[in-house]
Amino acid sequence: MRRMAPRKQQEIFDATLRLVAEKGYDGLTVEGVAERSGVNKTTIYRWWPSKAALLGAALVEADVLGFEPPDTGSLRGDLVALVESMIRLLTEPPSADIAVAALAAAARHPELDTRNFFADRFAKEREIFERAAQRGELSASADPMLVLDLLAGAVWSRVVLRGLRAPDGFAAKAVSALLDGV
Amino acid sequence: MRRMAPRKQQEIFDATLRLVAEKGYDGLTVEGVAERSGVNKTTIYRWWPSKAALLGAALVEADVLGFEPPDTGSLRGDLVALVESMIRLLTEPPSADIAVAALAAAARHPELDTRNFFADRFAKEREIFERAAQRGELSASADPMLVLDLLAGAVWSRVVLRGLRAPDGFAAKAVSALLDGV
Repeated sequence: MRRMAPRKQQEIFDATLRLVAEKGYDGLTVEGVAERSGVNKTTIYRWWPSKAALLGAALVEADVLGFEPPDTGSLRGDLVALVESMIRLLTEPPSADIAVAALAAAARHPELDTRNFFADRFAKEREIFERAAQRGELSASADPMLVLDLLAGAVWSRVVLRGLRAPDGFAAKAVSALLDGV
Repeated sequence: MRRMAPRKQQEIFDATLRLVAEKGYDGLTVEGVAERSGVNKTTIYRWWPSKAALLGAALVEADVLGFEPPDTGSLRGDLVALVESMIRLLTEPPSADIAVAALAAAARHPELDTRNFFADRFAKEREIFERAAQRGELSASADPMLVLDLLAGAVWSRVVLRGLRAPDGFAAKAVSALLDGV
C-alpha cells in the first residue's frame, strides 16, 4: 500500500480532531470525518480500521498538536516554558477542546490508545532532563516521568478538573515548589 | 418541601453513580436512575432539576466517595496517605469508574458543576496544611491548593491519562519530590 499524500493525511487528521472537539468521542464517526475532509470513507478505513485508530494517529501526527521541547539553557527555564505550553495546550483554542475531549475520552475507552501520544511527547520531554543532567543541574536519582506527572498533572487538575484559571505565575510557582521544595 | 429520607437519597445517589460508571455521562438519564433506584422520576426531578444537578449532588453526598483527611501527626505522613487514597480512588472499584467517568465528563459539560465536589474536598484537605503550619512544618508562603494540584494531578496523569500503574512507593516519591525538592 503506497503512502498517503501528507497534505491529504493532515486534512483527515484536522477533520478528526475538529469533530472530536465539537462532538466528543461518542459523536466522532469515520463517516463524519469522510464528509468533513472530502475523503472517501473506504479510503479512510483502508488506512485506519476504526475511529479509535484514526484519533490515536491524529493525536500523534496532527500539526495542530505538534510539540517541540523548550531549550532555554536551564532546567528551571525549560520546565517553566514547558508548564506554560501545557497551560496553553489545555486552555487555548483550538488545542484545548481537542486535547480535553480526546484525553478525557481515553480514560473511558480503552480501545482509544493514547500511549503513542504520551510516549512521543515523553521522548521529546526527556531531552530537557538529559541536558539538565549534562549541565549538572539534576541528580542521577531524579525521575523525569514523575516530575512531568507532577507538573502536567498540576495544570490538568487546576484548569480541567477544578475548572479554574491558572493564575499569573502559576508555572513559575509550580516549578519552584518542585525544584526548591515546599 | 420536606427533606428526603437519607436512605432513599443514598439509593438515588448510588444508582446515579453506578449508571455514570457503566454508561458514561452521555448514557446517564434521570429515567435510568428512577428505574434503577425504584424512585419515581417526578420525585427525582422535584429535588434535582436535571441529570447534571443530580450527578453534582451525588458526587458530594454519596457515601461511596466519602472522604476524611488523614491525620498521621506529620505533614509528610498526611500527604503520603492522601496520595495513596487518591491512587485508590482512581484505580479501585467502585470509585475508580465513578470518579474517572464523572470528572472526565465535567471537562466537556460545563452544566455538570463539580466545583462543590472539589470545594468540599479542599475544605477538608486544608486541615492537613493548618495542622502542619501549627506544628511549624510549613512556611507561611506555602500554597495548599498548588501542593494538592501537583500531587493529585500526578496521580491523575500517571493512572488516568498515561494509563500506567502507579508503582510501589509512588506516593512517597511524589511527596518527597515536593517536600525535599528534585
